[in-house]
Amino acid sequence: MNIDMIRAAADRAHGAIRRTPLLSAPTLDVLAGRRVLVKAECLQHTGSFKARGGWAAVTSLPKDSPGILAMSSGNHGQGVARAAANCGLPCVVLMPADAPRAKIEGTHAWGAEVVLYDRLRDDRNALGARLAEQRGLALIPPFDHPEVIAGQGTTGLEIAAQAAEEGVGRADVLVCCGGGGLSAGIALALAAEAPGLRVRTVEPQGFDDVARSIEAGEPILNAPGGTTICDAIMTPTPGRLTFPLLQAHCGPGLAVTDEEALRAMALAFRHLRIVLEPGGAVSLAAALFRRDQIDGEAVIAVASGGNVDPSVFARALEA
Amino acid sequence: MNIDMIRAAADRAHGAIRRTPLLSAPTLDVLAGRRVLVKAECLQHTGSFKARGGWAAVTSLPKDSPGILAMSSGNHGQGVARAAANCGLPCVVLMPADAPRAKIEGTHAWGAEVVLYDRLRDDRNALGARLAEQRGLALIPPFDHPEVIAGQGTTGLEIAAQAAEEGVGRADVLVCCGGGGLSAGIALALAAEAPGLRVRTVEPQGFDDVARSIEAGEPILNAPGGTTICDAIMTPTPGRLTFPLLQAHCGPGLAVTDEEALRAMALAFRHLRIVLEPGGAVSLAAALFRRDQIDGEAVIAVASGGNVDPSVFARALEA
Repeated sequence: MNIDMIRAAADRAHGAIRRTPLLSAPTLDVLAGRRVLVKAECLQHTGSFKARGGWAAVTSLPKDSPGILAMSSGNHGQGVARAAANCGLPCVVLMPADAPRAKIEGTHAWGAEVVLYDRLRDDRNALGARLAEQRGLALIPPFDHPEVIAGQGTTGLEIAAQAAEEGVGRADVLVCCGGGGLSAGIALALAAEAPGLRVRTVEPQGFDDVARSIEAGEPILNAPGGTTICDAIMTPTPGRLTFPLLQAHCGPGLAVTDEEALRAMALAFRHLRIVLEPGGAVSLAAALFRRDQIDGEAVIAVASGGNVDPSVFARALEA
Repeated sequence: MNIDMIRAAADRAHGAIRRTPLLSAPTLDVLAGRRVLVKAECLQHTGSFKARGGWAAVTSLPKDSPGILAMSSGNHGQGVARAAANCGLPCVVLMPADAPRAKIEGTHAWGAEVVLYDRLRDDRNALGARLAEQRGLALIPPFDHPEVIAGQGTTGLEIAAQAAEEGVGRADVLVCCGGGGLSAGIALALAAEAPGLRVRTVEPQGFDDVARSIEAGEPILNAPGGTTICDAIMTPTPGRLTFPLLQAHCGPGLAVTDEEALRAMALAFRHLRIVLEPGGAVSLAAALFRRDQIDGEAVIAVASGGNVDPSVFARALEA
């Protein structure tokens, strides 16, 4: 993994991936006690940054590939399915049966075949490997894949340029973190292009494996049996490829509660007029509700996705 | 009014007004039967395009102005208040007492003094004229003002450039319309920079005074006593300055129901992940639900604002 792979992914993404805006609102600055800049990846194609990694990975396959298999909690599947549809490749997405309807339907809408599994009983990796072998499909995992990390890293190239436009040279960059693909990609991009910007992962409490792994210096698993409404980032442990990058480049990780994620969704609704899903709002929640754990006069929060069912969003509006 | 005023307003707005994105989603294209491009002005500072006209009008005042009075259903007030705060000028906003809380609080947050009036009993124009005279304030009305129209017209300059980037040279441009400031400004900009793009106003049914005025060739008043959830665009008749521009440059106007506006809000939530208020969603509603009245392979909908109370948004999510 290196910055050249991210730059190459950005070149391939030209015209296919949106340069999402960096949004702000004075009321959020007051709440956070510093300037808050929100990178609105919910406005990305497919509603999350996952369109980036999906595009990078699919466009790196040989043109005669027999097709793709993606394993996904729901956003990665849509990102890969969109890229596959654009390239005319068949696509199968392995998703948990309890994924939000918006994500299952969104994946279908891109023409992918959706295979559901039981998140508690089935072994996703084994299922995925078998399906890929049976059908001769190229497996694109959700984060532990060099091209996926490179694609997510294109977010970091944009942040480096946009922060400079805003006159922000030093800041913590808070990134919603599951397996660490987005965090690792952004960290790698910023290390090369904006070394004053430092990535810090944000996870749901009880699922802060990455924060604890960075602190311990070795991969740690979450305690089993926990629950969170942040369906997008329930990953049990950092990836084999992502962990060394996170360890090398990131500051201490942060964690927030489900309640705080819902409040951040409500504040983004009201002051930024964007739709965030719980797992896409934890970075903003940390910016607003962990101000004592953050350094500097400005903070950048990567709001990673907005694929949320109306009932969950309505719950946030009441928060 | 001419294109040079719009270009000058764009120059003054540089760095202070966002170039909002043109969003799209395949599902919306399917529903509309053509390509749909949504100009997301809900992502503008203050949550609506009104930040543009407010900025243009305030920055055209002499630097020693004693202050500003704005009359507003809620969005114009926020736009003017933001510009006034940036210029260090006192600002009073005259708003209906039944305006959405989000709009009243948003105006307060920019440091403006809010004066409420009864929309059914009080005469807004008389009240505003008296207040302005008593306090020596410069009156900035919501639409019938050359600099306000010029500021809103900067939206049209962006649409011309962004449509060209998307390869769209001919299309109807649907614009949410109250008094016609945004529609007139965009129409003037497009006439100069993208003559293949034609503005068509969209209003709530029962408040389609602009559509009927364009058809009749003279200003027509809405029947009194009607109601709509589209609080931003309940204006009774087109403006003295805006009407001739609308008549000269716009195609036939369209009208949609409140129910259709709510459905468009829900679809924008789900497929674009943006928050629209009812009056900011009527253009998208027309794109989706008036397909037989629209020409061409693509349509551009200007989604003009997103300042909506949670209870109304929750209603849309159930639609």
